[in-house]
Amino acid sequence: MPLLVVGSVALDSIETPLESRDRIIGGSATHFSYAASFFGPVRLVGVVGEDFPAEYRQLLADRNIDLSGLHTIPGGKTFYWKGKYLPNMNDRETIEVQLNVFGDFKPKLPDTFRQSDFVFLANGSPVTQMSVLDQVVKPRLVVADTMDLWIREQHSPLLALLKRVDGLVLNDSEAKLLTQEENLVTAGHKVRELGPKFVVVKKGEHGAIFFSEHETYVLPAYPTDRVVDPTGAGDSFAGGMLGYLAAKKNFEPQTLKEAMAYGILVASYNVEDFSLNRLQQIKMSDIEDRLVKYRRMLSF
Amino acid sequence: MPLLVVGSVALDSIETPLESRDRIIGGSATHFSYAASFFGPVRLVGVVGEDFPAEYRQLLADRNIDLSGLHTIPGGKTFYWKGKYLPNMNDRETIEVQLNVFGDFKPKLPDTFRQSDFVFLANGSPVTQMSVLDQVVKPRLVVADTMDLWIREQHSPLLALLKRVDGLVLNDSEAKLLTQEENLVTAGHKVRELGPKFVVVKKGEHGAIFFSEHETYVLPAYPTDRVVDPTGAGDSFAGGMLGYLAAKKNFEPQTLKEAMAYGILVASYNVEDFSLNRLQQIKMSDIEDRLVKYRRMLSF
Repeated sequence: MPLLVVGSVALDSIETPLESRDRIIGGSATHFSYAASFFGPVRLVGVVGEDFPAEYRQLLADRNIDLSGLHTIPGGKTFYWKGKYLPNMNDRETIEVQLNVFGDFKPKLPDTFRQSDFVFLANGSPVTQMSVLDQVVKPRLVVADTMDLWIREQHSPLLALLKRVDGLVLNDSEAKLLTQEENLVTAGHKVRELGPKFVVVKKGEHGAIFFSEHETYVLPAYPTDRVVDPTGAGDSFAGGMLGYLAAKKNFEPQTLKEAMAYGILVASYNVEDFSLNRLQQIKMSDIEDRLVKYRRMLSF
Repeated sequence: MPLLVVGSVALDSIETPLESRDRIIGGSATHFSYAASFFGPVRLVGVVGEDFPAEYRQLLADRNIDLSGLHTIPGGKTFYWKGKYLPNMNDRETIEVQLNVFGDFKPKLPDTFRQSDFVFLANGSPVTQMSVLDQVVKPRLVVADTMDLWIREQHSPLLALLKRVDGLVLNDSEAKLLTQEENLVTAGHKVRELGPKFVVVKKGEHGAIFFSEHETYVLPAYPTDRVVDPTGAGDSFAGGMLGYLAAKKNFEPQTLKEAMAYGILVASYNVEDFSLNRLQQIKMSDIEDRLVKYRRMLSF
């Protein structure tokens, strides 16, 4: 079933305690769509500048990712983010942000994309996210991401958006900020009461918690000693999750839980190298192998 | 099978953002033995002063906890700890510590305790822990806890102890400190290479990771919106874990994993009220009920 993602396509410069990379492909829609493409076709809506390397575009095009919604602005420059990870590899500092063409991003869906059953509104202003939603015709499942900036500075538009999405994915600190609740279980359910039928709170290296009216469950991250670059972990998690749901064509409780597990596993590969490097090396069978180990890990 | 614990029995004054309690029963051996007593008899070795309330002693005695190793020092005062939890209920500040009789604690095992198959050396100086080990005759399984203080200030005795224990239980920050490793999976295995056959790294509200030569697995904490007082969570975790192992009379890989799950569930009850209050209210059937839910949570 068609899966649509709207979000950023970026060039990232990343410093980690061990290694650095300059102007590699990044962005929320990039990580999401690459992760989701293991499960089926993806439609990407985003914007880049003329400086966006043809090889990066090809990387996505080779993966069953429809780029007819990826606009290139003549003379424009691609969204650029430079960040540095602290030794714990969880906390990071933003060193430089150049919004460039992404600063004026007013997503316009190609007509063929307006009929998309599954929609992911990657992190962006809730006003922009809402404008995307207005262009989609009767989606079956809409999931959004958000961040502290919008919680603080676009609170009302965010609350309006939450009334219209089926699911929300956000970080633990963001769930606490949004609800002013310190207990994460309470916070998750309070977010859910703002509108979404389900909420997934991402806890980074500690996994994720799922909240629906009748369910609260935690799935841990897949333990790995090879964390090279955590950038895009959350988006590849969402990509794996929604990719699986779109492939399964349903979002029953059991499917949602399986989807969350797939999201966790795709993310566990994503962090094992910079950018999309690790995901380029693996196949669906690698994800399935890890799923077998993950299931075994959680059974006793 | 006889399970022996040597550690602190204390009076705690605890402030949380919502409520406070003064001079309630606490201490590592207390939380451990109460938790373990759900599964079978426990032998406690510790020391208290004359001020230790008879009702607290009775609380333990009523639970299949053999107190013939709990020494009362005439004229002495019981180990006292006063602490305050920050709003996140994970971080805490120590406001006051009075070691009192615990400061001179030189554990001497009653003769009847020297034959104990399962031994838990609760957090204490590694020199003291070693002196206990020297008094036990051919234990089948020895597990120790430790803390940052001993890692920093008694490094050599700790390393010597690690060569003689089967298992070590410690916090994530302590595992990182001991190994100078930021990645927790790497850190856990490096701790294991210092001697113990298995290592359990406690991650508080995020659960625990198990490390043996052939296994690495994470089990999440049981999600609860009712965290009243986290004091003793780690010790009740260890108590549930070793209590289960002692009852099962083995420590095969599968039993160890089940034991870790029981530890997590007993700890999830422990934090739902101050001191031993919540554990006093529940029965083994409550733990089993939660186990059913926990298993369901982790299966997909």
